[in-house]
Amino acid sequence: MTPLLAEFIGTAVLILLGGGVVANVALNKTIGNNSGWIVITSAWAFAVFVGVTIAAPYSGAHLNCAVTLSVYLMGQLDLITALQYMGVQLAGAMLGAFLVWSMYKDHFDQTDDAGAKQAVFCTAPAIKNLPRNLLSEAIGTFVLIFTILHFKDATLDSTTPIGLGSIGGLPVAILVWAIGLSLGGTTGYAINPARDLGPRIMHALLPIKNKAAFNIEYAWVPVLGPLLGAAVAAGLYHLIH
Amino acid sequence: MTPLLAEFIGTAVLILLGGGVVANVALNKTIGNNSGWIVITSAWAFAVFVGVTIAAPYSGAHLNCAVTLSVYLMGQLDLITALQYMGVQLAGAMLGAFLVWSMYKDHFDQTDDAGAKQAVFCTAPAIKNLPRNLLSEAIGTFVLIFTILHFKDATLDSTTPIGLGSIGGLPVAILVWAIGLSLGGTTGYAINPARDLGPRIMHALLPIKNKAAFNIEYAWVPVLGPLLGAAVAAGLYHLIH
Amino acid sequence: MTPLLAEFIGTAVLILLGGGVVANVALNKTIGNNSGWIVITSAWAFAVFVGVTIAAPYSGAHLNCAVTLSVYLMGQLDLITALQYMGVQLAGAMLGAFLVWSMYKDHFDQTDDAGAKQAVFCTAPAIKNLPRNLLSEAIGTFVLIFTILHFKDATLDSTTPIGLGSIGGLPVAILVWAIGLSLGGTTGYAINPARDLGPRIMHALLPIKNKAAFNIEYAWVPVLGPLLGAAVAAGLYHLIH
Amino acid sequence: MTPLLAEFIGTAVLILLGGGVVANVALNKTIGNNSGWIVITSAWAFAVFVGVTIAAPYSGAHLNCAVTLSVYLMGQLDLITALQYMGVQLAGAMLGAFLVWSMYKDHFDQTDDAGAKQAVFCTAPAIKNLPRNLLSEAIGTFVLIFTILHFKDATLDSTTPIGLGSIGGLPVAILVWAIGLSLGGTTGYAINPARDLGPRIMHALLPIKNKAAFNIEYAWVPVLGPLLGAAVAAGLYHLIH
Repeated sequence: MTPLLAEFIGTAVLILLGGGVVANVALNKTIGNNSGWIVITSAWAFAVFVGVTIAAPYSGAHLNCAVTLSVYLMGQLDLITALQYMGVQLAGAMLGAFLVWSMYKDHFDQTDDAGAKQAVFCTAPAIKNLPRNLLSEAIGTFVLIFTILHFKDATLDSTTPIGLGSIGGLPVAILVWAIGLSLGGTTGYAINPARDLGPRIMHALLPIKNKAAFNIEYAWVPVLGPLLGAAVAAGLYHLIH
Repeated sequence: MTPLLAEFIGTAVLILLGGGVVANVALNKTIGNNSGWIVITSAWAFAVFVGVTIAAPYSGAHLNCAVTLSVYLMGQLDLITALQYMGVQLAGAMLGAFLVWSMYKDHFDQTDDAGAKQAVFCTAPAIKNLPRNLLSEAIGTFVLIFTILHFKDATLDSTTPIGLGSIGGLPVAILVWAIGLSLGGTTGYAINPARDLGPRIMHALLPIKNKAAFNIEYAWVPVLGPLLGAAVAAGLYHLIH
Repeated sequence: MTPLLAEFIGTAVLILLGGGVVANVALNKTIGNNSGWIVITSAWAFAVFVGVTIAAPYSGAHLNCAVTLSVYLMGQLDLITALQYMGVQLAGAMLGAFLVWSMYKDHFDQTDDAGAKQAVFCTAPAIKNLPRNLLSEAIGTFVLIFTILHFKDATLDSTTPIGLGSIGGLPVAILVWAIGLSLGGTTGYAINPARDLGPRIMHALLPIKNKAAFNIEYAWVPVLGPLLGAAVAAGLYHLIH
Repeated sequence: MTPLLAEFIGTAVLILLGGGVVANVALNKTIGNNSGWIVITSAWAFAVFVGVTIAAPYSGAHLNCAVTLSVYLMGQLDLITALQYMGVQLAGAMLGAFLVWSMYKDHFDQTDDAGAKQAVFCTAPAIKNLPRNLLSEAIGTFVLIFTILHFKDATLDSTTPIGLGSIGGLPVAILVWAIGLSLGGTTGYAINPARDLGPRIMHALLPIKNKAAFNIEYAWVPVLGPLLGAAVAAGLYHLIH
């Protein structure tokens, strides 16, 4: 499997599972309806675990443009490859979001709340305040990238298989679990441009009844915030090591 | 322990624990009554962990006809053995379901809701739509099999013990946790023909008062869907590697 | 640390954490009041993890008379030592229960429900039916012992440290988590004579206002049931290996 | 990275994630509002995991004055260094608390309950009773330190990287999870002077409307209690080994 294919498939599975849990919790008549924040954050953490397990030996399992930016800034990836990674991550996220919709279509049809339907695809702030929302996304992503850079495993290293076997994906899953539980309360922790923008585009394309707007006014926040957080994390890591 | 005995016992324990949690949550007067989706999905994940821990060194711990189909399609099992595996998985699932009923019998007697009682044994769709329910089961099982095929551990390899000791069963447990939390909201994630059909038959056989019908109209969905998903996963894996 | 001291301390910590979570959930005015089955079962699982982490290198970390019985039946412990293990487990459980009471004393004083106060110490059946309650405890303990006997780690081996470092206690914790979530709904999963009888005696001794009776009519069930389950598990293991 | 910088950053991240989850659960209009004790205790456990992952190879990842005291008492750190560790832990905790406030500022502004706002920073007893509150904090910290001293990993050893890679931080996270779930019901398990005092000072300094008092009458309890518990744990460990 080529690195780009691994990024594409890994991100698609990440979003299938991550978007899936929001559908399960937020849409009407699902079995997991209204089952709470622990369900949502656990599933996103395990979604990362699954995506990383699939992609790590082939691409380093970025699955996230902010991760790819940090790897580029650390000098471990050239610019063209980094941009290719980001492109297939976006495409993979769109495929994952499409699969969620195809599975939960009947539940979308029985849900009136346009906000709940959009939440299956992309994030929205609890209290809109663009500078602070940007700060929230930057801080969450800073914690993600800064911690990953301190991992002693091969998770981000595309030249070796994961040292511990498939358990090697657990640390990054726990990290994402922590960020979601603690720092997800303001903007819903996109912490990944592809995770937010790809499904947001798919939401705009799909024939969903009573649909919320694309929300271009906010859509740049979960793209720029994570990139800023990743840049600061890489810079600080470079500074102190 | 022979491979077939390991599959029989492992599947029985899987269903004892998996059916047990539904009994605990869905039946009346239980201590864990109405304790939610996180309880159900966690317990099914750990049920897989326990079953895999017991059976892995002896049979590769399939415990699931869809897993066995994928191993057969990958050319690692001959047809006769594969069919034997499936047969004992079905029998083990029936034994596990019988044990759940024998433990929770007094709670069955105090529960009127025929649907809740049947849910202890087998799945039912939240919104009935057979083609989409089939798709749901196929997608959930695709994620299961496609990810297992990418595991770097020996979990599916019957010739070696698990590399990391009993921790080696954790990745597949987290995988099932993810699928349940995220993709279980439509059809209840059977993702395993034996897990659904075996207990469904046991439910029909047991002397339960005010019992729901076998539901033959739906019963084929959690059998065919997982087999389709497994076949697609094995095919895609073959294609990209 | 001698094996007996390790069993004493390990069991005391197990019951301090296990009884503690029931106090936190069941007593009035606690911070975790009424926080549900996932909280109770997670904490008991992690309580096992902590107790095992402390005691494993010194005693094999039984912390449970049913485990000790199974080790004796497998011929790995002589009768005198086995009885000594059981004695200090009972004493350790009493100490742990005393510590829970000393911490949560003010909350005991503000709780009227005698059943809730006793539940901090020992189990009671959701629906009283002695033969079936006995079966419940036996099945739960069977799963515990039968699975432990299949672990490939050194958790039960007092002559070696845990192979994986402190992670080595995780499998048995997940196993207890599974049993609690799934099989705890009928009798509250004592699955350990020392865990139930020691705190039950301590409850009888402590100066608690408006206290429930010792309940001798039921108290033998969580003692005999686990011992039966352990004996059957050891026998079946012997038979098939 | 120097040991002191590692302690500073590690503690800041610990408190950012730990304070963050309380903000998410306790403040108004957050996405995780009122999501319960399992959310709070899971996040604090994973916060420890993240902080330890970052700091362990450089400082041994104390992140807690009580841990530092125990390491000093075990003769593995000189007094000056121990005091420096404690100082930077306090400073790091203040930085982490500041970051939580900067992220959740809009939610602080929309929350009237002064107690909820202060709870984001520091602990308060469920039932005020200073001697018993002190005992609670001492017992919780005793379990923390006594168990850490029995870990067979290198988590507390600043001269080696974590043996298992980043998974090596998992045991201490599970330990903190257990203590929170079980022993956090009385005083909110500070079990760390820096974790409570640093954010308490930051709360006093920040321009928060309708703010609770510093509560000097109680503030010494989550400082002295953990230090007492750590001293007893180190003493007992010394005595029995």
